Amino acid sequence: MAKRLGWLLFLAPSLLFAQGNPAGDWQVMTDIYGNPLHQRLVLTSEGGKLTGELAGDKLEGTVSGKAVHFVAKGDNPGDTAEYTGTLEGDTISGQAVLTDGDDKSRTLGAFTARRLPQRPPGPPRRHEFTPSTYYRQFSASTQPVLTVWPGDTIHTTTVDAAGADAGGVTRVLGGNPQTGPFYVETALPGDVLAVHVNRLRLNRDYAISDDQIVGRALNSQLAVKMKDTGKTIRWHLDLERGVATPANPTDHLKQYTVPLRPMLGCVGVAPGFAAAPSPTGDSGRFGGNMDFNEIVEGATVYLPVLQPGALLYVGDAHAAQGDGELTGNALETSMEVELTVDVLTHKSILSPRVESPTHLMAVGLAGSLDEALRTATASLAQWLEQDYKLTPPEIAQVLGTAMEYSVNEVADRNVGIVAKIKKERLAPLGAAKP
Amino acid sequence: MAKRLGWLLFLAPSLLFAQGNPAGDWQVMTDIYGNPLHQRLVLTSEGGKLTGELAGDKLEGTVSGKAVHFVAKGDNPGDTAEYTGTLEGDTISGQAVLTDGDDKSRTLGAFTARRLPQRPPGPPRRHEFTPSTYYRQFSASTQPVLTVWPGDTIHTTTVDAAGADAGGVTRVLGGNPQTGPFYVETALPGDVLAVHVNRLRLNRDYAISDDQIVGRALNSQLAVKMKDTGKTIRWHLDLERGVATPANPTDHLKQYTVPLRPMLGCVGVAPGFAAAPSPTGDSGRFGGNMDFNEIVEGATVYLPVLQPGALLYVGDAHAAQGDGELTGNALETSMEVELTVDVLTHKSILSPRVESPTHLMAVGLAGSLDEALRTATASLAQWLEQDYKLTPPEIAQVLGTAMEYSVNEVADRNVGIVAKIKKERLAPLGAAKP
Amino acid sequence: MAKRLGWLLFLAPSLLFAQGNPAGDWQVMTDIYGNPLHQRLVLTSEGGKLTGELAGDKLEGTVSGKAVHFVAKGDNPGDTAEYTGTLEGDTISGQAVLTDGDDKSRTLGAFTARRLPQRPPGPPRRHEFTPSTYYRQFSASTQPVLTVWPGDTIHTTTVDAAGADAGGVTRVLGGNPQTGPFYVETALPGDVLAVHVNRLRLNRDYAISDDQIVGRALNSQLAVKMKDTGKTIRWHLDLERGVATPANPTDHLKQYTVPLRPMLGCVGVAPGFAAAPSPTGDSGRFGGNMDFNEIVEGATVYLPVLQPGALLYVGDAHAAQGDGELTGNALETSMEVELTVDVLTHKSILSPRVESPTHLMAVGLAGSLDEALRTATASLAQWLEQDYKLTPPEIAQVLGTAMEYSVNEVADRNVGIVAKIKKERLAPLGAAKP
Amino acid sequence: MAKRLGWLLFLAPSLLFAQGNPAGDWQVMTDIYGNPLHQRLVLTSEGGKLTGELAGDKLEGTVSGKAVHFVAKGDNPGDTAEYTGTLEGDTISGQAVLTDGDDKSRTLGAFTARRLPQRPPGPPRRHEFTPSTYYRQFSASTQPVLTVWPGDTIHTTTVDAAGADAGGVTRVLGGNPQTGPFYVETALPGDVLAVHVNRLRLNRDYAISDDQIVGRALNSQLAVKMKDTGKTIRWHLDLERGVATPANPTDHLKQYTVPLRPMLGCVGVAPGFAAAPSPTGDSGRFGGNMDFNEIVEGATVYLPVLQPGALLYVGDAHAAQGDGELTGNALETSMEVELTVDVLTHKSILSPRVESPTHLMAVGLAGSLDEALRTATASLAQWLEQDYKLTPPEIAQVLGTAMEYSVNEVADRNVGIVAKIKKERLAPLGAAKP
Repeated sequence: MAKRLGWLLFLAPSLLFAQGNPAGDWQVMTDIYGNPLHQRLVLTSEGGKLTGELAGDKLEGTVSGKAVHFVAKGDNPGDTAEYTGTLEGDTISGQAVLTDGDDKSRTLGAFTARRLPQRPPGPPRRHEFTPSTYYRQFSASTQPVLTVWPGDTIHTTTVDAAGADAGGVTRVLGGNPQTGPFYVETALPGDVLAVHVNRLRLNRDYAISDDQIVGRALNSQLAVKMKDTGKTIRWHLDLERGVATPANPTDHLKQYTVPLRPMLGCVGVAPGFAAAPSPTGDSGRFGGNMDFNEIVEGATVYLPVLQPGALLYVGDAHAAQGDGELTGNALETSMEVELTVDVLTHKSILSPRVESPTHLMAVGLAGSLDEALRTATASLAQWLEQDYKLTPPEIAQVLGTAMEYSVNEVADRNVGIVAKIKKERLAPLGAAKP
Repeated sequence: MAKRLGWLLFLAPSLLFAQGNPAGDWQVMTDIYGNPLHQRLVLTSEGGKLTGELAGDKLEGTVSGKAVHFVAKGDNPGDTAEYTGTLEGDTISGQAVLTDGDDKSRTLGAFTARRLPQRPPGPPRRHEFTPSTYYRQFSASTQPVLTVWPGDTIHTTTVDAAGADAGGVTRVLGGNPQTGPFYVETALPGDVLAVHVNRLRLNRDYAISDDQIVGRALNSQLAVKMKDTGKTIRWHLDLERGVATPANPTDHLKQYTVPLRPMLGCVGVAPGFAAAPSPTGDSGRFGGNMDFNEIVEGATVYLPVLQPGALLYVGDAHAAQGDGELTGNALETSMEVELTVDVLTHKSILSPRVESPTHLMAVGLAGSLDEALRTATASLAQWLEQDYKLTPPEIAQVLGTAMEYSVNEVADRNVGIVAKIKKERLAPLGAAKP
Repeated sequence: MAKRLGWLLFLAPSLLFAQGNPAGDWQVMTDIYGNPLHQRLVLTSEGGKLTGELAGDKLEGTVSGKAVHFVAKGDNPGDTAEYTGTLEGDTISGQAVLTDGDDKSRTLGAFTARRLPQRPPGPPRRHEFTPSTYYRQFSASTQPVLTVWPGDTIHTTTVDAAGADAGGVTRVLGGNPQTGPFYVETALPGDVLAVHVNRLRLNRDYAISDDQIVGRALNSQLAVKMKDTGKTIRWHLDLERGVATPANPTDHLKQYTVPLRPMLGCVGVAPGFAAAPSPTGDSGRFGGNMDFNEIVEGATVYLPVLQPGALLYVGDAHAAQGDGELTGNALETSMEVELTVDVLTHKSILSPRVESPTHLMAVGLAGSLDEALRTATASLAQWLEQDYKLTPPEIAQVLGTAMEYSVNEVADRNVGIVAKIKKERLAPLGAAKP
Repeated sequence: MAKRLGWLLFLAPSLLFAQGNPAGDWQVMTDIYGNPLHQRLVLTSEGGKLTGELAGDKLEGTVSGKAVHFVAKGDNPGDTAEYTGTLEGDTISGQAVLTDGDDKSRTLGAFTARRLPQRPPGPPRRHEFTPSTYYRQFSASTQPVLTVWPGDTIHTTTVDAAGADAGGVTRVLGGNPQTGPFYVETALPGDVLAVHVNRLRLNRDYAISDDQIVGRALNSQLAVKMKDTGKTIRWHLDLERGVATPANPTDHLKQYTVPLRPMLGCVGVAPGFAAAPSPTGDSGRFGGNMDFNEIVEGATVYLPVLQPGALLYVGDAHAAQGDGELTGNALETSMEVELTVDVLTHKSILSPRVESPTHLMAVGLAGSLDEALRTATASLAQWLEQDYKLTPPEIAQVLGTAMEYSVNEVADRNVGIVAKIKKERLAPLGAAKP
């Protein structure tokens, strides 16, 4: 079957008197057959009555002393989540009953809610992080290497796609090993993580690439022409002149240079509820190995938060890359990276977004370019709908006259098409409301 | 079956004395079961011996008085074309026998060759052409409206995609009606036609478009959102300010403007030997309805010559267009057009090419974006191989670091992906030899 | 632009007195900028009032003496077709005004209506037709070679895809030359043509094929393996044993046999209003080169009628063919063909349909298999909706449990997927109402 | 980057005298940056000289007392694997040096080899296995639940895709939870696992499905029609009559029945070296969620062995399923399963294969149907090449005349096309040599 998780989930407390007040923001974990489901719970209490939201669904309930009870209703008629628990300090624990309105099936699970922590006083911090271990999966099970708050900055490094660091020492098996994961406090499923790429700098003088073209970009004739390629090509990175050149160029390429334009091939978060970890060569709604050459210094990447803390990973830096990463390996190298993270609460995005000083860019990742274009188009349409309040016919008129498409990725399991629009085209529509 | 034309075709005269000399360039037409096959024939004569080429294949033969005889050999072993004819002035006529080396099958047909005309003295000319009829097919059967020489310039106009002219008068049924065809003297199959777009100017103050997104760009969710769209939208073209605005904008779009960037949606030539005419909504190796928004003033379009004279058509001008022509109709309008044509002999190109001041661009047109990307990539690879003599591994290294992909077209039967490379990247490789 | 024809078209007469009665079925031709638009007109007259339908749209009007006037209204609000003419015997002629409700644009054109002929008395006829000319385009411009009535039977022959007849004589240039077109009286756009394949018999002892696999079915690795293939392969057809064998088999294939299963690669009708002719290697909603190996003796092919008389073409017979016609040429041969034609009025089908004794089969033809599957699925869903009155959720339940998909074609511009369902699964749903 | 593992790996011992003889079959594990690489090692010893194979690559070396040393050479020039170790009983341990011939990079790792166990005496065994835990990933990290030998039979049960067992009790979170993994002794990477489905029987009287069609099969029009579907549908399974019927049918479906044809939606093995686990909704070369309705009683599934013991998982049984699993959930139910496993050593297959009494079937799984068809075709071509020794042109002739394609899967991330050929067509080619 195609996996489906039919139910939507929620909560309702009853409060005896003011000895404990459940009002506030909570992070609730419900155990679903051994799998932790994490959701944001917002409670308002007035005279024993509770209102609020569970994962965006409206809830109503009661609080009576320590006894908390509430029911949230999903969009699908009959979907309900009933939570019955006991409030102890900053914890509520008890039992949940999730009912599928469709087939009336019920799922029971213990739950525990903890209050979302308050941001500590003082300005945002800058964290220096020196990685010692690198990860080859975007996983919710990996222990975070650092916990940061929204607004904080992380300064760190990445190894290259083959696992070699700034000194050329292999630190880990290849396959896009990642730095991280970074836990972003208060980020919960239903939010969006904004990753500002403040600084992206080369920290060694070579890169590794290939002399082939990936099968996806070859028709039969070009496949035959390319049949004897497949060698590793070493590139020299001239950080002063800002160019890359083949270290041992063939005759025709003796003068060939590539402007350095450092980028991150991977920016990703941990996949969602009960999902398997994703290999670091893969991509999806969680971001990952997007190989998009506009994820450069100055760009902001937006990813859906799918696990508490988001669990941000970065890696697979490229000194430069043509569209599509045609050679399978771009100019793979290590990198110095500085990121600032933010959390946009209560926001849902269809696919990863990237914002540059000039463009809004929605990344469509799928098994074919045709499908990727549909995803990218729908995702950019959603952006216009959410932030500019455009109606479907208005979206069509704007995209028909202003759409720019490029291809970010053809080298991996998912291919990618990016739907872009210049911000100057949107400026007359009024300020965006993200 | 999938259509295949297995054989290649050729010729050989013998010359008694100077009463008639077959040396020179000829255009030969061979009748193949009632279908005219047109080819370039190049003959050199020395002491009764003939050498030369027929459609690029080497030939050998004899000339004796008026009797001309030659045999050309194709690439496939055993493929031969034997021509036996009589030379009368600037005509050779006789019989051809084409043999398929594979299955030994023979095809017989009468042929007539005429000398390619010599360019008249004087500088290239500028032709003023006012169309009175417009065509809805790229066809080899349509009588040319004008004959020009390589280097000549054509100044003319196009009606909009719905058939309306600069005065808003409908002159022809819609569906991208074309101006042309223009016959370019000496252009023969095996050559490439270069169409320089010197001037492309709006000549009326409105355009017609739609408020929908074409099905190809819709996933299921966006299809449902867009289900009630499909209206015609009129745009005002402000030629002074250089912007387009919806004539009757909805609230959100009251300030929305689109910079005018006039382009030709269609530039095409007549399809090749025995091929059906192509509807003007379609595209292919012959060009046609490519809807590529870089075919603007200053660009050069390269198309394979598939019929004598190439038979150039232009039409479907847009005041502006986002990538993909998402609304089905872009800002459709009439246009003033000035083109200079050139012929590159003995050149084969896999797909249409466009050259701008900054980029080489190969257009891949196919039934899916995945296939279109393969075509575009192979076509740009061919360009690098032909003009820069790069080997397959060198091509991979250059494209891997410098490829730019965009999507030109998703609105019609063929979709299109453009493979681009900046000319400044290629400059260090040495001067191109087109 | 993507071609669109916005308006829908109609009619309304006024009748002075009974000197001429417009009631009945008409075929009306409206001239649209030089293009003939053919539609079915049904008029009912009562006391000077006219009601009826034009191309399925309701009309109202008046008749007064010879003066006929009516207006039909399209589905899109404001779309109208106003016809004003004069009745003379079995002809009405005059002027039409078509108004697009969307942009209020008006199109004017002369029209002529003629009464649909009455079926002559007597039983259906069997026509013996010996072709002398063969056509390489599905075209509305080709003069019909024979006119038949619904219920009539045609007995004829086809040449092979390369143009060779039963005697092995090449009669026409290759590329699937067709027998036909056959004009089916009373068939009009808006109807469906049913072509019953009564008899399909081999009439010579050999077929021609290839030893290659088409590019569409090759991944990079198989493309390299297949790089030296491309030869013609002759097959011996043993009509007594009912098998085909390679005429000059390689060692491994000395015992290889293929059961003969004669099929028609092409069954098509002329494309619709103002459409370019289609090359006989192409396919689409009009049928054409579908290369579907279930179009065998006993099958019925349903195609939309797009021109008066439908203009049926058949050709490209195969002695046998694996799914997809992988070699580009199947076992191409000449054939004896017997067909019975029928017309289903007022019926619209999304794509060609084939009915066998056991299955309903909807053919999806598109530029990619992914798109072809969507077309085929929607087309079979339409069949269940039309003939079995199933609702969308019911269609899902039936197709989810009973769908069978196969691939008919990967060798030509369009690829094809067939969505099939066993008739025995549908039998319990009640009798079909086609 | 696209993941690549450049090197190939090998071994060479030196033996002083017979105190320990390294000759025989070994399973060697080499530690590659913390990741276990498992390979088959075959050693032959003669007078202190070693020959043999490591993972199919030829090796040479020496053995001297306990000191073992050998070097294996890969296909790529310069690729070597040098193993230096000490033999102690049935263990060799030491250090390996893997050199990439391409870039001369070296990878070092400790290794341990253990002798492959000998099959215990006696006939194959039948194992009764009652699962208590179910797994939602195809993973190499999960502890095997049972160890069996080639030729052994496993009798067990599976829960349905939503995790419910024969009694309707939910035992695990949904998403195709699997029974297994089963460890098959002696199976090593480079082998193929054959899974004979002896018995597949329903063990409860209902199934769960949906009333929708998955997005992949919807064009824009059908997407709009289906917009209000998405409900769960319960089916009654009548085991006596052998049919399924909707438990609460709508009017049109009151008589609708589906013949029961129990199948396994998932048969998979653990992914290979250093690969992330695969979610049980996914599929690939390792098999997994193929949703192929020919994996029924009597079929044999062939999968590549990618980890020691293969680690076989089964689950996601369907009482019946149309091609493609269009509703997302087929008739999902629990099942009684009996399997016999076998190991084919030294065999490489491009994709999963299924053999029925009548057909050879190669399953192509990819992100688009177009790509899946290419994979399936290449995989069936490989089968004909391996077992029937056919050359590329012979393969083309056979597939061109005998290929049958169907669509197994459109409901999940990968779609699938199956390339089939009737065994009776191949019988005249001589006995297969698998």
